[in-house]
Amino acid sequence: MENLVAGVNVLEVVAVFVSAVSGGLAAVRKRFDLFGVLVLAWVCGLGGGILRDVLIGDTPPVGISSWKLVVAALAAGLATFVLHPGLTRLRRSVIVLDAAALSLFVVQGTSKALDLDAGLLASLVVGVLTGVGGGVLRDMLVGEVPLIFADRQLYAVPAILGAATVVVLWETGWWTWWSALCVVVLVLGFRLLSLALGWVVPHVGGGWTGRWGRESGKMDA
Amino acid sequence: MENLVAGVNVLEVVAVFVSAVSGGLAAVRKRFDLFGVLVLAWVCGLGGGILRDVLIGDTPPVGISSWKLVVAALAAGLATFVLHPGLTRLRRSVIVLDAAALSLFVVQGTSKALDLDAGLLASLVVGVLTGVGGGVLRDMLVGEVPLIFADRQLYAVPAILGAATVVVLWETGWWTWWSALCVVVLVLGFRLLSLALGWVVPHVGGGWTGRWGRESGKMDA
Amino acid sequence: MENLVAGVNVLEVVAVFVSAVSGGLAAVRKRFDLFGVLVLAWVCGLGGGILRDVLIGDTPPVGISSWKLVVAALAAGLATFVLHPGLTRLRRSVIVLDAAALSLFVVQGTSKALDLDAGLLASLVVGVLTGVGGGVLRDMLVGEVPLIFADRQLYAVPAILGAATVVVLWETGWWTWWSALCVVVLVLGFRLLSLALGWVVPHVGGGWTGRWGRESGKMDA
Repeated sequence: MENLVAGVNVLEVVAVFVSAVSGGLAAVRKRFDLFGVLVLAWVCGLGGGILRDVLIGDTPPVGISSWKLVVAALAAGLATFVLHPGLTRLRRSVIVLDAAALSLFVVQGTSKALDLDAGLLASLVVGVLTGVGGGVLRDMLVGEVPLIFADRQLYAVPAILGAATVVVLWETGWWTWWSALCVVVLVLGFRLLSLALGWVVPHVGGGWTGRWGRESGKMDA
Repeated sequence: MENLVAGVNVLEVVAVFVSAVSGGLAAVRKRFDLFGVLVLAWVCGLGGGILRDVLIGDTPPVGISSWKLVVAALAAGLATFVLHPGLTRLRRSVIVLDAAALSLFVVQGTSKALDLDAGLLASLVVGVLTGVGGGVLRDMLVGEVPLIFADRQLYAVPAILGAATVVVLWETGWWTWWSALCVVVLVLGFRLLSLALGWVVPHVGGGWTGRWGRESGKMDA
Repeated sequence: MENLVAGVNVLEVVAVFVSAVSGGLAAVRKRFDLFGVLVLAWVCGLGGGILRDVLIGDTPPVGISSWKLVVAALAAGLATFVLHPGLTRLRRSVIVLDAAALSLFVVQGTSKALDLDAGLLASLVVGVLTGVGGGVLRDMLVGEVPLIFADRQLYAVPAILGAATVVVLWETGWWTWWSALCVVVLVLGFRLLSLALGWVVPHVGGGWTGRWGRESGKMDA
């Protein structure tokens, strides 16, 4: 379990960086100043984990106390501020990396909460929040309705599935390095497959038509 | 006091369901997808209590750890998603039920905080937040200015009066099953009376004219 | 150190009052009702400190448990509701007072977090949040993109500089009454100088031109 935590921590820095880029790009689109871009990168990269830690009482949250995570988020913000025209061209890669970050956050967030005895249901909820919370805060801070609530994409669904799988593995004693990796791959695969095949969530008064064309990526809307 | 807490807990599930319907309806109006409707129902039914628990340090909050409350909120969301045309016709009943939920939340929230030694003022504040916080979070998540700040209705005022009464009863040693019930009835009666008679809160540059006609219910705006 | 905390506490009430006026004015501009004006004053005067206390686990936060702070914020809200035409004329004084409140909040917030062993980085972050968090919450509650992210002013920069200086003084053992006062003066001076000279933060696609004319004050935008 020690190894698992250590291994996930290494990947966590990468996941924070990738997610933070999404916040930086949203800030750039809104023509925020440098400070605003850095804050949005921080909120988007670390906001989900901050919500998790506040909700399970593990204060101060790593999102404000861990040098390596905060530096990763701010570096992503700075990179976005300087390089944003190039990043916009990398749209497709960014979508894939964002899905990878989602998978890592969900698995790491759920297992952290279980490890701190938050209970099964609370661990599932904060695991999902770790994955999707940063994006919700990002959208609220730029004055938009959170994309995830209305875009019909399967973004939260893989997160919920992944968090639930972690909870089941934990309870059945099958929680290991390898099973954790399998869940990450499962969430990532589900997310990418849903994008490729245009799977959508039902909405009020709507049909079930896919929207792969224009709105296929979170990073892009 | 044990009995009181048990009794209030039973009513709490109903109050969460009713409040969550209000969040679900807001999401339906914004044409959110199924995930968005469920999240809004959860936030609106349990967000006030989550704010309360985070502020008094009782983590993880019951709003993410209690199966019966989370299931009640999600069931309300699902019901709203499926049945929303019918719910819209039940407008008047929904307003009354929402007032009942407000009363229960305020009394239960204030007494929980007092029970956990949060102090008199903090208990009053989180009691009011338990009642009105879900609606504020709902409005923020759908991108609107919280209705409660500008609609001039007596919605927060009965909540504040109720929470203050609970604090006084607690301090004077008159806090019992019966006095708790009286406070619930007091808050509910005050809220419904203010709707029926068109009582309003003063606002900047405005007169004191009632607005019973178009904007008489929180659920409806 | 006892004396320091006591001294800062006296000034804290004044700082809360001044900041709360800024929230009240935002609510008046949005034509909120009396309840909305009071809530906005409370959030703007005490919201930064509430975020700080929740993040460092010091619950319930002083922003909901301290009579003198809550009364100061609500009194500011009431005063703003009644006297707002006069306050609008005092624009220039309000900007200076707001800068003073920012300085006090940052120094007090950072040192409180250090005192509660939150760690260096977390203390720096919550110190800045104590100063700027209320304004961000105010803008979100009135449905606007937080001014601080896009107005290019040096508002957060003096806050960050001040919090970092407190952390350094604390670590080097130079943290005293006098050095604390120097940091307050430093942050205030930096903020006012940046206003007077039109210094700005870079933004995407923008030059470095100052905007002293129309948008020179936070209170005014």
